[in-house]
Formats: sequence, C-alpha cells, structure tokens
Amino acid sequence: MVNYIAHPFYPPDIDLLGYAANTMSIPVLLGVFALATLIIVGFTSAVLKKINPGLSRQDKMLACWFIFSGCIHFIMEGYFVYNHKIMPSRLDLLGQMWKEYAKADSRYMTMEPFVLCMESITAFAWGPLCYLISWMIVANSPYRHPTQMIVSMGQFYGDVLYYTTSIVEEVYHARSYSRPETYYWWGYFVFLNAFWIFIPAFCIYQSYSVMAAMFRQHAVHPGKKSL
Amino acid sequence: MVNYIAHPFYPPDIDLLGYAANTMSIPVLLGVFALATLIIVGFTSAVLKKINPGLSRQDKMLACWFIFSGCIHFIMEGYFVYNHKIMPSRLDLLGQMWKEYAKADSRYMTMEPFVLCMESITAFAWGPLCYLISWMIVANSPYRHPTQMIVSMGQFYGDVLYYTTSIVEEVYHARSYSRPETYYWWGYFVFLNAFWIFIPAFCIYQSYSVMAAMFRQHAVHPGKKSL
Repeated sequence: MVNYIAHPFYPPDIDLLGYAANTMSIPVLLGVFALATLIIVGFTSAVLKKINPGLSRQDKMLACWFIFSGCIHFIMEGYFVYNHKIMPSRLDLLGQMWKEYAKADSRYMTMEPFVLCMESITAFAWGPLCYLISWMIVANSPYRHPTQMIVSMGQFYGDVLYYTTSIVEEVYHARSYSRPETYYWWGYFVFLNAFWIFIPAFCIYQSYSVMAAMFRQHAVHPGKKSL
Repeated sequence: MVNYIAHPFYPPDIDLLGYAANTMSIPVLLGVFALATLIIVGFTSAVLKKINPGLSRQDKMLACWFIFSGCIHFIMEGYFVYNHKIMPSRLDLLGQMWKEYAKADSRYMTMEPFVLCMESITAFAWGPLCYLISWMIVANSPYRHPTQMIVSMGQFYGDVLYYTTSIVEEVYHARSYSRPETYYWWGYFVFLNAFWIFIPAFCIYQSYSVMAAMFRQHAVHPGKKSL
C-alpha cells in the first residue's frame, strides 16, 4: 500500500511530490482573474481609440482579443511552462490560480506530455504572435490575415486536441483528470477553454474569406479559369 | 508478478490483449509501401501532365505531395483510426505495416489519447482536404492558398506535437515508446515523419508569401499607411 500525499486533484492516486495547499480562497482567485481581464481589455480599448480611432468595431474587438489572448498565453501559460516541474508546490498568485484550475485538469500538475508540449508552443509561439497580430490589425498590415490564420489555427487545433485527449483518456482508459463536481468540468474545463474554440474559429473564417476574396478579385490566372 | 503477452513493442510491460505476431517480412512490408508510393506519385504526375500541362514544376510537385499525403492520411492513418481498438490483432497488409511501424512508436497499439485524437483529425479532416488542395492547385483556385495554409498548419503542428510528446515522455517519465535499436527511432520515427515537418513548413511559407504579396499590391487601406 502506497501512501499518497492528500491533494484535491483527480484521479486521487496521482503522486504530487511537494504539494502545498492553496492559501487564497476561490472567490479571491477568480476575482483577481476577472479584474485583470477587465483591466487588460479596458486599457487596450482606450489605447486603440487613441492610436487608431478609425478602426472598425470588429477589428477593435479582435485587437482586444489578441492582446488578451497574448497575455493569457505568455503570462499564465508561460508561468506554467516555466514552472512545470514544481507546479504542485507553487504558492504565489499565478501558482494558486493554476492549482485552482487544475482541479478541472490535473495534467497541469503532472508534467503530462501533451499538455506540456502544447502549452510550450502556445506560450512562446502563439503568445508573442498574438501581440504582433493586434499591432498588425491597428497598422492595417498586409501580413495581418496570413499571420492571424496561422495563430488562430494553432489555438484552435491545440484546443481541440486539449479537449479530445482528456475525453479519450476518460472514455477509453477510465481516468478522469477533473474532479467529479459539475462546476469544475463545465465551469473551468469546458467554459473557459471554449473561448479558444469559437473566437479562433471566427478568425480563421474571417481571414479565409478575406484572402479568398482578394484572390478572386486580383489573382492573375495565366491561361486558366479560376473556380 | 504479471505475465505479459510477449510482443516486440516498447516499453515491454505494455499489455496488448489479442496481440498476433506479423507474418510478413520487413522487406516485403517496406517494399509494398515504397511501391505504393511510387505508383501514387507516378500516376498523379501522369494525370497532371494530361489535365494541366501548363502547371509550374513547383505546383506539379506540390499537387503530387497533396495527393500522396492525402492517401497516407486517409488510407493509412484512416485504417489506424478505424481499427484503433484492435490494432495489436490485425494481420491484413495495413495492420502488419502499422505493427512494423509501431516498433518505433507503440502508442499506435495502446489507444494513447494524443496519437488517437491527432490521427483522427489528420485522417478525416486533413486527408480529404489534401485531395481538395491538389485539385485547387490544378484549377488555380482562389481558395488554394488559404486552404493550403490551414491544412499545412494542421500537419505541421500535429507533427511537432507528435515528436515532442514522445520525447517529453522519455525525458521526464523515462518511458520510451520506441525499441532501442537506432533503426526504429531514426529510420521510422524521425525520418518518416520529417516529411510532414519540412514540406508543410515550405507550404506555409509559400502561401504566407503569396498572400502577403497579394495584400501588399492590392489591399485598400482607407486613410492608413500599410506597413
């Protein structure tokens, strides 16, 4: 019989060396997250209004999205990647936020290969590129849509694999990474990650349409009919 | 002490219910694969020469790549996804090919969640879309580059995760999915999959350049300077 350190994650038999329980309450952790989101989006909106007042409402929202998304990738997910070996012991603000979230997905506590690889690329490739795209939107850059397509595809595909690997593990191998309470699975795992399905899907659709329209209007078709 | 069924995969302690040893030799399996590749590429080249003799050399090669890639995704990888629950017992040609390859990556024998999810999307999304792109290349479609970007990104990112998850599992969790002989790791795992790193990377670069150039030349920038 092995004695495991008591922790709130699932499955309960995972061994988390050096685990230290959170000291901040859930409302405080969620409150700080919500407040930080509001500040980032509010500040970005204000800056956008100043530097490019002519930006369409949609582009303004997308520029905010890419700044917000860049912060989540680079700061939150970057923190995880940087600390992935010692996550269970972290007691600073971001560490406690991750330990609260990990009740819905313990893979963040165990150096699980897929989550670690996907998060590394998300934090250090998609993260900085998100900031770049929001600048490209403001500057009306010719590189905006091709770059938006790459990054949104990366976010979308990464998130689809993030969801499905967890579901396959549960269905085929009877291992759930999430606590059984509805709140964690639906509130954290499904709801929070759904933004990185729907918004990137919209961005892919937008860039695809704009680029296809551009080719339809301007492409030179030497001796060929276009579709 | 548990008695495992003897099999050639790594790590040796994975339990493969219903495992049946291959009956065809390695040269036969590799020979059939090489021959099928030659037939697909040769046949596609001949058809391309007939239906669009004006196609550039590069586009001809890419159209062949997408047909070949589509066949690998839809037929080989589709076979795996369709049979993922009973792979260790399969003795038909594709089953024996997969069991030979799995000496370099046993995840194909164990319903490992990441490989199963990534392969499902590869087989049934990127597979058919590869055929579509090769038609778009021939028809000089305005949808060619946006579609090529999506599919090549999917292939590239999927393959990066495929490599890195296996390496992380070995480095952090001391579990190797590959037999220790150099031939399997370098010959099958690294070499065969490298095509889906380098060629998609080139396709992304190509589509990115073409689309950015199109925007530089033709985009309307209302009251804004482009970058």
